[in-house]
Amino acid sequence: MRWCRIRHEGRAVAGIVEDEHVALVDGDPFTGHRRTGVRVASVDAVFLPPVVPPTFYAVGYNYRAHNAHAAARTSAAAPAPPAPERPEVGYRAQSALIGHCAAVVKPADCTGPFECEAELVAVIGRDLRRASRDEAADAVFGWSIGNDISARAWQRADRTLWRAKNSDTFKPMGPWIETDADPLAEGVTTTVAVDGEQVAAFPTGAMIFDPYAYIQEISRYITLRAGDVLWMGTDAMLEMPVGSTLAISITGLGTLANPVTEEPREQ
Amino acid sequence: MRWCRIRHEGRAVAGIVEDEHVALVDGDPFTGHRRTGVRVASVDAVFLPPVVPPTFYAVGYNYRAHNAHAAARTSAAAPAPPAPERPEVGYRAQSALIGHCAAVVKPADCTGPFECEAELVAVIGRDLRRASRDEAADAVFGWSIGNDISARAWQRADRTLWRAKNSDTFKPMGPWIETDADPLAEGVTTTVAVDGEQVAAFPTGAMIFDPYAYIQEISRYITLRAGDVLWMGTDAMLEMPVGSTLAISITGLGTLANPVTEEPREQ
Repeated sequence: MRWCRIRHEGRAVAGIVEDEHVALVDGDPFTGHRRTGVRVASVDAVFLPPVVPPTFYAVGYNYRAHNAHAAARTSAAAPAPPAPERPEVGYRAQSALIGHCAAVVKPADCTGPFECEAELVAVIGRDLRRASRDEAADAVFGWSIGNDISARAWQRADRTLWRAKNSDTFKPMGPWIETDADPLAEGVTTTVAVDGEQVAAFPTGAMIFDPYAYIQEISRYITLRAGDVLWMGTDAMLEMPVGSTLAISITGLGTLANPVTEEPREQ
Repeated sequence: MRWCRIRHEGRAVAGIVEDEHVALVDGDPFTGHRRTGVRVASVDAVFLPPVVPPTFYAVGYNYRAHNAHAAARTSAAAPAPPAPERPEVGYRAQSALIGHCAAVVKPADCTGPFECEAELVAVIGRDLRRASRDEAADAVFGWSIGNDISARAWQRADRTLWRAKNSDTFKPMGPWIETDADPLAEGVTTTVAVDGEQVAAFPTGAMIFDPYAYIQEISRYITLRAGDVLWMGTDAMLEMPVGSTLAISITGLGTLANPVTEEPREQ
C-alpha cells in the first residue's frame, strides 16, 4: 500500500495511491482511517510530505563512499570524522520538509556547493522502547525517499547544521510511504537523475549500519513514536544546479522529484 | 495569563491557571480556544509540557560563565568552542519533553556528570519568516522554563547530542507558559534549588544574544511556527543527585520542579 498526504480543498489529507488515483481517507495510517469515497487523479494531486514526524531522525555517515567524499572536501582544520563504529543518530527539523514536486529554494546568500543527498527513509509505525532487532524491524511501517539537501559552506562555517541542512525546503520527502517493499534486499538501487539524466547510482542496502540497528540503539534511550522518520544517509552527494529538476528513485519505492529554484536577491 | 497542558481523563488538555485552579479549554492558545467550564485544582493537576513544539530550537553557549564552565570540563582533544559571534541555533528532540513534577530518569548506563541546565524558554505564537527585531519580539507568545539535562560523558563521546541531551525525560519544561512577563528585564533572576536549597542564581537576561536576535536570525532561513520553542541557554550547570528534587525558578514565571530518579540496572 502507498500512503501519501495531499493538499485537498485547502487542507492536508491522507490518501492511498492506487493506479492513477489517490483515494482520500479520514484519519491517518497510524491511528486509524476510513475511506471517504473521494478520489483525486494522481497527476492533479499536490503532494505534501507523506508524514509530519514527531521526531525527525537522520543518520550522518552510513556509506563508505560518503565518508571518502566528505574527506576529500574537508580541510586539515576540520577533518572528516572516521567511519562510525556505533549507530549514532542525529536530527533534522520538521520545518524543512516539503513534498514531491514542490520547489527547492536555494537561499540568495548561499554560496559554495549546494548538494543533494539521496536517502532511504524508514517510517516508524508504533511506539517502541528497548526493542530487540526483530521488534525494530517489525515497527517499521513503510519506506520513503528523502533528499537531505546540504549547503556545504554553511556546514563548515556554522556551529550546528541549522541552516546548512534545515533551511526552508531543504528536506524533500516522498512521494509516498510504500508499505510492501524491502529496500534492503539485494538488487535494490538508489539512483539520482538531473533533468532526466542519471548521474549517480548505488546499492541502497550497502549501509554501515542498517535501519534496524539504528532503531534498536535509539530505543535503548528514547521512545520512538508512530510517525517518526529515520533518514538513512547517502552514497550520492551531487551538486543541484539551479533551474534543474532533481529526481531520486529507489527500486520499488517510486521517484521523488523536485525542481531547484533560487531565492531572488535583494535589489 | 498562564497556559498549561494537563492530563485529564486520559487526554492531554490545554488549560488556564487561575488562582488555585486550572480552567480547561477546548482548543489551544495558538489556533483558538473556548472554556469548557471544567476546573481542576492545581494541586491535583498532572502537568504535561505546556506545548508540543513542531520544531524545538535550543541555544548552546549563551552566557559567558557557561563557556568558562565548558572549557574547564573539556580536554585538549576536544576543546570548548569560543564564545559565539553570531546567534547560531541548535535543536533538541520533542521526544525528550516531560512536564512539571514528572520524574527525570537517569539511564542505568549513564556515568559521569549528570547536569541540569536552567534555561529561559521563548514560545513562538505565530508563523514568522524574514522578521525584523520588532516582529520577532511581537511573535513571542509567552515564556516558560526548561531544564536542558545533559549527560556529559555522552556529550563528549558521541558524534551528536542524541542521547547526551535527548534521552527520554531529559527535557523538563513548564510549569506553564506565562504571557504577561518580561524575563529579560532588569532584576529577573534564574535560580536553581536542590531539595529546597538554592545552589545557583544568575541574571536571566545577561545573554550573549537575546531571544529576539535568535528569532530574527533563524527567520532569515527558516519559517518559525506557532508553538515552536526556543531554549535560551544557561549560566547554571549543576550535578543533579539521584533521589533529589531539582527546582528551577525564574522571576515572574514560576517554578519547574522534577524529582531525579534512576533507571533500575539489569540484574
